[in-house]
Amino acid sequence: MAKDFKPKARRPRGFQDRRGPGLAAERALVAKIAAVYEAWGFEGLETSAFEYADALGKFLPDQDRPNEGVFALEDDDGQWMALRYDLTAPLARFTAENYDALPKPYRRWAAGPVWRNEKPGPGRFREFWQCDADTVGTASPAADAEMIAVACAALEAAGLKPGQYRININTRRLLNGVLASIGADDPAKRLTVLRAIDKLDRLGVEGVRLLLGKGRKDESGDFTRGAGLSDADAERVIAFVSAGRGERDETLRALSDVVVANAETDAGLVELRAINDALRGLGIADAQARFDPGIVRGLEYYTGPVFEAELIGAEDEDENRIRYGSVGGGGRYDDLVARFTGQLVPATGFSIGVSRLATALQAMSEADAEGPVVILALDQARMGAYLAMAQELRAAGVRAEVYLGQSGMKAQMKYADRRGAPIAVIEGGDEVAKGVVTLKDLKLGAALAREIEDNDAWRKGRPAQVETQRSDLVEAVTRMLAENAPARSD
Amino acid sequence: MAKDFKPKARRPRGFQDRRGPGLAAERALVAKIAAVYEAWGFEGLETSAFEYADALGKFLPDQDRPNEGVFALEDDDGQWMALRYDLTAPLARFTAENYDALPKPYRRWAAGPVWRNEKPGPGRFREFWQCDADTVGTASPAADAEMIAVACAALEAAGLKPGQYRININTRRLLNGVLASIGADDPAKRLTVLRAIDKLDRLGVEGVRLLLGKGRKDESGDFTRGAGLSDADAERVIAFVSAGRGERDETLRALSDVVVANAETDAGLVELRAINDALRGLGIADAQARFDPGIVRGLEYYTGPVFEAELIGAEDEDENRIRYGSVGGGGRYDDLVARFTGQLVPATGFSIGVSRLATALQAMSEADAEGPVVILALDQARMGAYLAMAQELRAAGVRAEVYLGQSGMKAQMKYADRRGAPIAVIEGGDEVAKGVVTLKDLKLGAALAREIEDNDAWRKGRPAQVETQRSDLVEAVTRMLAENAPARSD
Repeated sequence: MAKDFKPKARRPRGFQDRRGPGLAAERALVAKIAAVYEAWGFEGLETSAFEYADALGKFLPDQDRPNEGVFALEDDDGQWMALRYDLTAPLARFTAENYDALPKPYRRWAAGPVWRNEKPGPGRFREFWQCDADTVGTASPAADAEMIAVACAALEAAGLKPGQYRININTRRLLNGVLASIGADDPAKRLTVLRAIDKLDRLGVEGVRLLLGKGRKDESGDFTRGAGLSDADAERVIAFVSAGRGERDETLRALSDVVVANAETDAGLVELRAINDALRGLGIADAQARFDPGIVRGLEYYTGPVFEAELIGAEDEDENRIRYGSVGGGGRYDDLVARFTGQLVPATGFSIGVSRLATALQAMSEADAEGPVVILALDQARMGAYLAMAQELRAAGVRAEVYLGQSGMKAQMKYADRRGAPIAVIEGGDEVAKGVVTLKDLKLGAALAREIEDNDAWRKGRPAQVETQRSDLVEAVTRMLAENAPARSD
Repeated sequence: MAKDFKPKARRPRGFQDRRGPGLAAERALVAKIAAVYEAWGFEGLETSAFEYADALGKFLPDQDRPNEGVFALEDDDGQWMALRYDLTAPLARFTAENYDALPKPYRRWAAGPVWRNEKPGPGRFREFWQCDADTVGTASPAADAEMIAVACAALEAAGLKPGQYRININTRRLLNGVLASIGADDPAKRLTVLRAIDKLDRLGVEGVRLLLGKGRKDESGDFTRGAGLSDADAERVIAFVSAGRGERDETLRALSDVVVANAETDAGLVELRAINDALRGLGIADAQARFDPGIVRGLEYYTGPVFEAELIGAEDEDENRIRYGSVGGGGRYDDLVARFTGQLVPATGFSIGVSRLATALQAMSEADAEGPVVILALDQARMGAYLAMAQELRAAGVRAEVYLGQSGMKAQMKYADRRGAPIAVIEGGDEVAKGVVTLKDLKLGAALAREIEDNDAWRKGRPAQVETQRSDLVEAVTRMLAENAPARSD
């Protein structure tokens, strides 16, 4: 590199810079979810970003994904390391390494970034956060029910009310039993059927019926080859995936009516009944968690119950509910440490997609994120006095900062605007002489500028700026912030 | 790889697995510090783990460190990326990339892991957390004072009281002026002098005097070659680094007495006086922040004021204070984005060493971290009832969990012990028949087992287990937890 080489300032392809209120909301979300996990007895675990490449198994939920989609490098002793692509593979390694010393069953939660070496695209990043809870070392359906209930508690801690979310539950054993009953034992055929069911949400019953049979041509004219089931077999599958009812008890009855009894369907029904009993003990209502036989959740990974968390948006003008997609999911996977030790250790877990949940919560809420109060610095010689104002405000619990640049009044007001400040505090020469400060209500100013003040009763008759005694600064700012807060609708 | 290849479960060399109360304490610490940064108007920024290698400059504070000490890999488009080794280099890239759109001055905070590809050793890890605040785009000494004051606020939010910590302040300009006044302009000589001063804390005045002169032989017999200053010049340096007094005003007077006036020492004194005025405005006492001319803080990186946060331990039996070393530091570096844009952008910052602070706080506190209440599961058929108990306790704000394994009573008690549970809730057949539950006080049990109960008045006369009506579960558990809490000493 030449001495005067200037690198271009750019972030790497497929990565994000995240800042301000959006980032703060997401971190606050993780903290709330973590507090719930802790309250339920899950213990925090933070493994490092790196694992030895041979320790990273194929724990990706979907075998379709390239196994080589990791960031790997060779350590100076010749061993290959890779960045974790999820939080489950490190849990497997950690559990296998420390099995004897762990309390068993071992409940652990973890939150942090994971990395995927994939082709970046819109909304598809190579680094993103996961927040997981897992229980290792028990096959009890109560552990699965607990994962469902803790997910409910986490979503409510995040600010959702019952009715704004739902956990949909199924079990892989029922799916397996139904597939066995129609003779779909061939792995490729199994996969095609599961993929078809997985599209129920998007394509509806008619679309799935085509994909179970000969195949389906989509709107662009592309043809997807179907599973080739007979009409009767396809109807059996359709009857199964459509057996979901509003109440869990009812769904259990409907399921025992539609499935052909075999070892797997029997085991699946026993499992769901035990989960239902445990959910009742945990006080989880039908509106919070229901059985939905159409849930597939990954193709080859899970071995028992599977869960998916869905947000339920408000109805729009056409009475359609706004859809946010899945904000989390999980299930039972009973071979967590087998690849290290050969020992079968049952486990069940739930992962919350932090970014997606944060985005949905923001879309569902009306609240504006607000910046700190900004104190203008109009006379560098009075900097100590400005800093003291900020300190007084912070002592009263008000976020506050002093403008620290050298620019004039206009640029300082622009700065306050960029910071999202609700109030600018101004102490110019006139104010100093009179022992007062001027508070500029920037929210009201913005509203006036948008000429929407007539619609907003709460803004009526309020002045856009007030003069107050310096000694009353904290009281006046606090009052203006309170007036500024929009009336709550709930 | 053979099909039956079993990888060894082991974490990569030089990395840590962290869990439980220690991890929780460290995360809580970051959250508290972040809340302070937010209250002071610093905006959160999270860049990705990767930067392009050419964008990672030599922002490591110490040029001695190998510049190649990063984890790097080649992206599939041939561009080299590396994991960040601190939070400053990504800030530089981000600022240069988004300069026009940022509010200026731009205050940002960041917290997260950084990676160093170094030889691991005891207590020396290749991944660790930093928590930084920086103000970009102002040369104002008020910005430096604010970094000092926000560091005080952060340390107090972390639980330290004034008197338990101190920020020591110096300025590189005074050091430069003193070096110029003794004719130490040669970079190698400068470095040797700065290194000698940096050892004041460890070697005392006598040791530094030797290192400024001909050199010093340490206890092992190894000889460190000195800077070769004349006795008179060495004394000048010694007089300067010893000019620190308990009060900032006093130190400023002492400094103007000992330093030879030149452009740099004049500028340094002006800078410190301005910082002192701003600190007064911010209400920062002499006990919280003092001027200490012996502080060097990295060798080539900083251009103006430098700060270092020191914890002040209690006195031990010999009236020596326990030393914890530096838990953070920072200073002014005025070439943040110059290597990208050529433009000089002044900046000042402070970085808290989260792990070291958490360790020190833990050493300074007596508090035991406590696990959740554990409800034993003695009859799988009653699982719903156990889960309901846990749910009731959690609703009352008590961390609680049900044992989900299949083992018997003894193993379940061992489990509760490993979880650090304060109480085990037992509902066996007898209890069910009587409509009661038994609460086992595990802390008291442990104390009895250690035979220290006689010394602890609060434990006197308390039974190690009580039977209570099932309907009184929450009340009885809450009462036992309150009795269990040791009397506070403050």
